[in-house]
Amino acid sequence: MPKNAFYAQSGGVTAVINASACGLIETARKHPDKIGKVYAGRNGIIGALTEDLIDTSQESDAAIAALRHTPSGAFGSCRFKLKGLDKSKAEYERLMEVFKVHDIGYFFYNGGGDSADTCLKVSQLSEKMGFPIQAIHVPKTVHNDLPITDNCPGFGSVAKYIAVSTREASIDVRSMSKTSTKVFVLEVMGRHAGWIAAAGGLASDAEHEIPTIILFPEVQFDQAKFMAKVKENVEKYDYCTVVVSEGTKWPDGKFLAEAGTRDAFGHAQLGGAAPVVANMIKESLGYKFHWAVADYLQRAARHLASKTDVEQAYAMGKAAVELALQGKNSVMPTIVRTSNNPYSWAVGSANLSEVANVEKMMPGDFISEDGFGITPACREYLAALIQGEDYPPYKNGMPDYVTLRNVAVPKKLTTPFDVKV
Amino acid sequence: MPKNAFYAQSGGVTAVINASACGLIETARKHPDKIGKVYAGRNGIIGALTEDLIDTSQESDAAIAALRHTPSGAFGSCRFKLKGLDKSKAEYERLMEVFKVHDIGYFFYNGGGDSADTCLKVSQLSEKMGFPIQAIHVPKTVHNDLPITDNCPGFGSVAKYIAVSTREASIDVRSMSKTSTKVFVLEVMGRHAGWIAAAGGLASDAEHEIPTIILFPEVQFDQAKFMAKVKENVEKYDYCTVVVSEGTKWPDGKFLAEAGTRDAFGHAQLGGAAPVVANMIKESLGYKFHWAVADYLQRAARHLASKTDVEQAYAMGKAAVELALQGKNSVMPTIVRTSNNPYSWAVGSANLSEVANVEKMMPGDFISEDGFGITPACREYLAALIQGEDYPPYKNGMPDYVTLRNVAVPKKLTTPFDVKV
Repeated sequence: MPKNAFYAQSGGVTAVINASACGLIETARKHPDKIGKVYAGRNGIIGALTEDLIDTSQESDAAIAALRHTPSGAFGSCRFKLKGLDKSKAEYERLMEVFKVHDIGYFFYNGGGDSADTCLKVSQLSEKMGFPIQAIHVPKTVHNDLPITDNCPGFGSVAKYIAVSTREASIDVRSMSKTSTKVFVLEVMGRHAGWIAAAGGLASDAEHEIPTIILFPEVQFDQAKFMAKVKENVEKYDYCTVVVSEGTKWPDGKFLAEAGTRDAFGHAQLGGAAPVVANMIKESLGYKFHWAVADYLQRAARHLASKTDVEQAYAMGKAAVELALQGKNSVMPTIVRTSNNPYSWAVGSANLSEVANVEKMMPGDFISEDGFGITPACREYLAALIQGEDYPPYKNGMPDYVTLRNVAVPKKLTTPFDVKV
Repeated sequence: MPKNAFYAQSGGVTAVINASACGLIETARKHPDKIGKVYAGRNGIIGALTEDLIDTSQESDAAIAALRHTPSGAFGSCRFKLKGLDKSKAEYERLMEVFKVHDIGYFFYNGGGDSADTCLKVSQLSEKMGFPIQAIHVPKTVHNDLPITDNCPGFGSVAKYIAVSTREASIDVRSMSKTSTKVFVLEVMGRHAGWIAAAGGLASDAEHEIPTIILFPEVQFDQAKFMAKVKENVEKYDYCTVVVSEGTKWPDGKFLAEAGTRDAFGHAQLGGAAPVVANMIKESLGYKFHWAVADYLQRAARHLASKTDVEQAYAMGKAAVELALQGKNSVMPTIVRTSNNPYSWAVGSANLSEVANVEKMMPGDFISEDGFGITPACREYLAALIQGEDYPPYKNGMPDYVTLRNVAVPKKLTTPFDVKV
């Protein structure tokens, strides 16, 4: 009897994480001699710990195929980080217990840096416990911060969304600038790195000039310099767009978003960086402004996904199964850039020991010298990732996203396990 | 010699106002015996007052055709309302002077309620001054508040954007609700009427159930009732989506967005309704939340335009010229709903005297009894307007929006005119 596989989605979901699930399950279904059933964790790794497994064999081929065009995490995800083997010993032992009783031979974990680390530990522990499991990490993160791989599935689609939205809102403001709005501020995700903010720089190109100022978390916010730049743009173009990362910080290390804003009752408000920046421009320069906070809209926007991103996400799921079938363990499939212009890529792989706990930051030469824009090298890197459109099917004017049945696998263990979330 | 035409865009721009310009200019070009050149006002009516006219005959057929898929206002718009003939006498006289010297026989004004009123006055005054101009209003407003016409071009695309974005972000939150975000709050436009907020109700349907609470400007905000509803949804579904109109008000008539928020220096902040609602949920119920403010993204999102909306916007521009050629004056082409399911529509027309200064509010039977949702009648009305997709062409992964040359018509008047904006 072939071993079963376990698959879980981890951390913040994306527009294309289900495309990886699709690639993984469709490929596994082609090898019934090697892989039994694919069980998914309901709400990620918590589903494994609580023995709440989903039997994906209960889903039709059509439903699995529809995952390719459905954003969000179809099986549920979670923010739950397993710590080191010493601190989270009970959790790891429980995982082994659940995997053993459900005859799991393959552990596929679809996530970012934290889940790569968990994946590595599962592999190490399973060997030590005499119940070897092939652990394969499937890369996913809108934050694009995994090492070795050229980029991370999920990021390309957010980048496309931010680039397109910035272009659209900017030409709207350009229309209105004579009598009304002169500055538009868009807040984007990325608490630690400016990858997503950088994508705002793609709104402007040789044929579509748009005065854009980007505020990166990598660059200490210099209010006077920023105001001078806004003023310069408005005087030259009559309008200006600002893309601010939620991770932009004051010189004292505080986030712009933590501007000490209080409501009428004196309660501290969790504001956003965009209104802080907009209000500061209004006060200092008097310009009319509008601001937007894209938040989850940016990472869920499957309607505007990058075709490149969808294909890479699918390829990573497929490659994960292929690596498993080749007997690989403790690895992650990667995207290898083989050419820049035209962009081409191939599938590679990396050892998890080189992936876990390594964060890839933006290269220093991707941010322009004044700190407010992207360099040609950055543009070339990013432009490749937003190529192509891959529209979901529509029904009655709305995207027809699939909701799976998510049928539970009967429990076999009698001991409950308390997960402290 | 045929008379020239003047065209101007007024007020907030939309994803499809340029489609109306496209329909108008393309149709005018087919009748060179009746219509000379089409001059556009640079930055709307201000361009007429300052004799800053754009010669659209300098644009290629391809550039004009590209207007159909380009959001924003290609000639610039403005927020500048002409008052009554008594108060704004100088402005109206100046308009006549400019129109006369440029041999304008047709006045096409593309806007909402205010511009319908201006259009009517131009027609009345031009007759009185012995220089008759046919004034035709071309409907446009994301606020959907013009009377007589079934709907207003611009609205259908915003509705589609809000419906799709709400569905996408909601299923994202659903994936995360086990350990993380339980409530997602999306702020949408609509200071006076809840048409756009209502579109959030389309995110949920028979096949895609999404617990959605809508906060309408038409319904006085009842904090206790709202909290109870959020709690009920989260307890039942483990998550909940809130679509809040920027126009939602406290019982004392103040906007939610004016929550008295102050920054660290005590300055009043122009916040948003979404963070106010999100913080209130956090404090009262303790749920983790995320919030987004779509702002200009929603009205500029040509990448997700409703095909129905694009076709209607184009048809309104085309019909405006056809009405002019039929000798009509002081009219506005309208959209007439001829069938609901399947939706079909025809072009009609209305007298401006019946359009000017009349605001169409949401019918009372469009809001559900509890005040938090839409009725089946509202769903049927809205669903028709978001039918079909009409994607812009892409180049290098980005929508290829046109920027016109906007060549100025040589000035003929020697007197400058000071517009107080």
